[in-house]
Amino acid sequence: MCSSKRASQYHKVETPPPQPFLKSLKNTLNEILFADDPFREIRNEPKTSKKIELGLRHVFPILEWARGYNLGYLKSDVISGITIASLAIPQGISYAQLANLPPILGLYSSLVPPLVYAIMGSSRDLAVGTVAVASLLTGAMLGKEVNAVENPKLYLHLAFTATFFAGLMQTCLGILRLGFVVEILSHAAIVGFMGGAATVVCLQQLKGLLGLTHFTHSTDIVSVLRSIFSQSHMWKWESGVLGCCFLIFLLTTKFISKKRPKLFWISAMSPLVSVIFGSLFMYFLHHHFHGIQYIGELKKGINPPSITHLVFTPPYVTLALKIGIITGVIALAEGIAVGRSFAMYKNYNIDGNKEMIAFGVMNILGSFSSCYLTTGPFSRSAVNYNAGCKTAVSNVVMAIAVAVTLLFLTPLFFYTPLVVLSSIIIAAMLGLVDYEAALHLWRLDKFDFFVCLSAYLGVVFGTIEIGLILSVGISVMRLVLFVGRPKIYVMGNIQNTEIFRNIEHYPQAVTLSSLLILHVDGPIYFANSSYLRDRIGRWIDEEEEKLSKSGEVSLQYIVLDMSAVGNIDTSGISMLEEVNKILGRRELKLVIANPGAEVMKKLSKSNFIESIGNERIYLTVAEAVAACNFMLHTAKPDSPVPEFNNV
Amino acid sequence: MCSSKRASQYHKVETPPPQPFLKSLKNTLNEILFADDPFREIRNEPKTSKKIELGLRHVFPILEWARGYNLGYLKSDVISGITIASLAIPQGISYAQLANLPPILGLYSSLVPPLVYAIMGSSRDLAVGTVAVASLLTGAMLGKEVNAVENPKLYLHLAFTATFFAGLMQTCLGILRLGFVVEILSHAAIVGFMGGAATVVCLQQLKGLLGLTHFTHSTDIVSVLRSIFSQSHMWKWESGVLGCCFLIFLLTTKFISKKRPKLFWISAMSPLVSVIFGSLFMYFLHHHFHGIQYIGELKKGINPPSITHLVFTPPYVTLALKIGIITGVIALAEGIAVGRSFAMYKNYNIDGNKEMIAFGVMNILGSFSSCYLTTGPFSRSAVNYNAGCKTAVSNVVMAIAVAVTLLFLTPLFFYTPLVVLSSIIIAAMLGLVDYEAALHLWRLDKFDFFVCLSAYLGVVFGTIEIGLILSVGISVMRLVLFVGRPKIYVMGNIQNTEIFRNIEHYPQAVTLSSLLILHVDGPIYFANSSYLRDRIGRWIDEEEEKLSKSGEVSLQYIVLDMSAVGNIDTSGISMLEEVNKILGRRELKLVIANPGAEVMKKLSKSNFIESIGNERIYLTVAEAVAACNFMLHTAKPDSPVPEFNNV
Repeated sequence: MCSSKRASQYHKVETPPPQPFLKSLKNTLNEILFADDPFREIRNEPKTSKKIELGLRHVFPILEWARGYNLGYLKSDVISGITIASLAIPQGISYAQLANLPPILGLYSSLVPPLVYAIMGSSRDLAVGTVAVASLLTGAMLGKEVNAVENPKLYLHLAFTATFFAGLMQTCLGILRLGFVVEILSHAAIVGFMGGAATVVCLQQLKGLLGLTHFTHSTDIVSVLRSIFSQSHMWKWESGVLGCCFLIFLLTTKFISKKRPKLFWISAMSPLVSVIFGSLFMYFLHHHFHGIQYIGELKKGINPPSITHLVFTPPYVTLALKIGIITGVIALAEGIAVGRSFAMYKNYNIDGNKEMIAFGVMNILGSFSSCYLTTGPFSRSAVNYNAGCKTAVSNVVMAIAVAVTLLFLTPLFFYTPLVVLSSIIIAAMLGLVDYEAALHLWRLDKFDFFVCLSAYLGVVFGTIEIGLILSVGISVMRLVLFVGRPKIYVMGNIQNTEIFRNIEHYPQAVTLSSLLILHVDGPIYFANSSYLRDRIGRWIDEEEEKLSKSGEVSLQYIVLDMSAVGNIDTSGISMLEEVNKILGRRELKLVIANPGAEVMKKLSKSNFIESIGNERIYLTVAEAVAACNFMLHTAKPDSPVPEFNNV
Repeated sequence: MCSSKRASQYHKVETPPPQPFLKSLKNTLNEILFADDPFREIRNEPKTSKKIELGLRHVFPILEWARGYNLGYLKSDVISGITIASLAIPQGISYAQLANLPPILGLYSSLVPPLVYAIMGSSRDLAVGTVAVASLLTGAMLGKEVNAVENPKLYLHLAFTATFFAGLMQTCLGILRLGFVVEILSHAAIVGFMGGAATVVCLQQLKGLLGLTHFTHSTDIVSVLRSIFSQSHMWKWESGVLGCCFLIFLLTTKFISKKRPKLFWISAMSPLVSVIFGSLFMYFLHHHFHGIQYIGELKKGINPPSITHLVFTPPYVTLALKIGIITGVIALAEGIAVGRSFAMYKNYNIDGNKEMIAFGVMNILGSFSSCYLTTGPFSRSAVNYNAGCKTAVSNVVMAIAVAVTLLFLTPLFFYTPLVVLSSIIIAAMLGLVDYEAALHLWRLDKFDFFVCLSAYLGVVFGTIEIGLILSVGISVMRLVLFVGRPKIYVMGNIQNTEIFRNIEHYPQAVTLSSLLILHVDGPIYFANSSYLRDRIGRWIDEEEEKLSKSGEVSLQYIVLDMSAVGNIDTSGISMLEEVNKILGRRELKLVIANPGAEVMKKLSKSNFIESIGNERIYLTVAEAVAACNFMLHTAKPDSPVPEFNNV
């Protein structure tokens, strides 16, 4: 292959023209914050009035889809809206219990937020409501500082305040276009975290199932099991039996719907059916079964205002802020992932940052009207999607159904047994322990599995926060490790071509005598420059050892393939200078192949190129090799012609 | 160029054979922890006795170099040892003052640690001693919790304990081969941090220069200046004038030595000369100048044992641990960087992990014998190097000189004015404010400059810890940002070649009709998968818009060049699957070029390759393009032959 070209035949490696600092800063920030260029349409529009219209539509997507709305859509939306309402009412009450909040809050939270989302949200399939994990987290974190039984008012007000802060943070993230913050939760971390949270939530339900009144405030498996077994004399069998019956019923309906997706409504309706049957059962038999607790009175009437109840005074404000931020991020991650996946099915786009603003505003307004944290739960949205919803009007229908319930039907829930709510939660949670996804991770990527497992074990044996911190920490560590320990490998030539590849990946690739071609598989930064220096040294040592053993021609050139070096910092440049000096002392020459734009810019600014000379920088590995071979020839006309040697 | 090859002519992209999990884990850990393969020599040695000998030499480098030691070396080492002793004695006393420790501790710390380092250290040029930054940090952090004046014993014992913990941590890092932890301090961060610390140290010296007795415990510039100007009536002019005279003398000698490196001994000796003249001055005139404070009595005798003074009881143990870890890491970073740079000049190797063990043991033994934290300071080592030291014997000579001083000469320091010590510190510190390095960073890499500036401002306006956390945080953020927002650019063909390059970097490269070639310049991880999906979508939108405007053939193939994608995780694979689906709906075909070993392994495990088909994966961009062109031809025989169109 590599014929000995003359130097003039090689392609020049360009140094990009210098960019003014402010311009390159603007470009970088644009790439980070406006990667998807959301305002392109508005910017390209010449007329101002049209611009304003487009801007309004950008903020309130309802203006976009309301124009094309028709009766057919309405029919679909009413059906799906009623379906999700039948799920939302019992689920709302259950999850509020999980957060140690009055059950009525679950209903309130299904009234205001869905209406706000219908105006501002861009997903057509998302059904808004409270979620189990955020509820549990609120309950666990708040319960550590304030006793919900002794001080119910403060507890309630802090829950509103936390919701307010969560909404505020979500709105800010969206407006500042910092939506990528949520990306720090990798898929693997979410699988583990959700599975762990679901396990913990199920464990908490044992309280309701066994009819216990005293229970630990901790959420870890050890404390919960100890609390349960130390009270074995308090277990109420009636409660347990009733709960198991409903659980079996709910799981059966789930199984049926899973097997036959057309029958989705069976599992969607089953919680409401359970509540109705459970309530009837207790209404007639509550004299016989004293062991079974029931909800009791629910206040009639729609959401009372709560804006004056927000607590902004220390010491509680920091607690509320902390809870708001943590639950807000988790709620965002779930809501956006759910919105995205359904948008994928129906082939439309969702702007994560816009969604964040919608979620944020809905939670802020929610916190003003006695709601706690809401997002787009997966289960409810899936039912909505299966029921054939067309637009966010299904959320409006659900809100109306909930309002009717609040106004007229709350007395019907008086005798609803708590154990039914526990069964509903357990049935919903079991689907979240996604062991198949975990197995898939194990097969595909051991590190991701490790992240997932850490999140799971952290949540189950520690607290939800520990699991969260562990999984985020390990995920970020992976990124740092990628940069900190880039792969560096020897390249060989694939015969009869000008292609050079990793000789471990392509064993048929042959190395060349007198030349060592090294490929650096990552950016060169402070975190890896010492490593790269040592590793390059070691590759050379090993190669020379091998050559001296086999008595071959000694090394002359080290070609560094920079194709995959996306960037370099000052530490990296110092490292290259150092390597160049060390090689010089060993009578080896450093040759650079294919430096990228960013790398080339910095190398020329730092005078590295001047110091090693332009004839040491080539556009491709093949040209670098050809040039080295040419120089070897002309330098020592009597030396043997370099040939390939099989590895 | 790209002739329409038949499919059989393309090179196959190999899937590397699966590796057992434990083997690949072992390889990964080996790469992370034993990148430089330090035990190669020992491993390759067949004889056990020889193995033990090599092992001992590995731990105690003195066994290595002592054999070749000769009289010529000794002469050089004695000269340089005495030179550094003359610097070490006044500096030691000054820095101990900085840490609010008894001045004698500075002398103790130049006795035991250098002896330990001479046995275990692998640098031939490092001169061991205390450093200003670690001294100040110890003083500032300890002073916040314990008052050095009211409770001097506890303060002293905690300083020993902190030294012990620093040594323990350093040893552990070295033994566990976690030396790379120090790499988290980038060059830019160190420049800013050191400059800030030097500024702060200089500000602290205003106390000594102006002869103030009360002074703030804070180190930030605002508190210090406020403290100084609020006491302007207490300023002692005699002290100030004397200090300025010595400062001018010291800076002049420094200037001379800098201009003429041969005269290095002038600046090396000047601190001792200042001390002598200052002491003589005060001895004769202390009755006239009451405003000038002097050291007073120094205890005669060498280091008393302090092993029984270490404090391991709460609440102080956590404070000592915290100080030990922070100062230990900073001391390590300086010591190893200094050792490495001098080793570079003299062309020998230093194993960072081995050095850490040497530093650690020297600090542990130091904490047992009334020393506080020592490392290899730059100034002292530079003098050592310039004085022509050959081996670590110069440290032994320095230790002997210090021992002689401790045993017989301490009374001579009775009248040494504190203001001379302040001048010595200021003169040493001014060299550390490396504004030229900062300017160099600004020219080369704006982000590095930003890191440097944050570290500087954090230290000067906040505390030393804030500066440290800021610079490390921002540096790590850069790594995460690199992975989070990889560059993705369009590639074009360089005419008459098979080379494809970034069209922004090489404007002469031409794009091909019906084809969009995108290069992803970084690994595909959870942190960037949404971004990449959006960005790929936007590139396609923009390209299609451009094509539809100019009325050209629409897009058919998207070629994704994965040359620079070092790794991919499960989120990344999901993203690729998603992109493939989205493209499919838009009637575009995804083609992958040059996936690396790691990427290929995961793509085939996840069945991604099966799902898109083997004919969509090529070894090079050129082959992918040729194949696409071939398919375009054969699929639509009547369509126009694709041609290059200039950008």
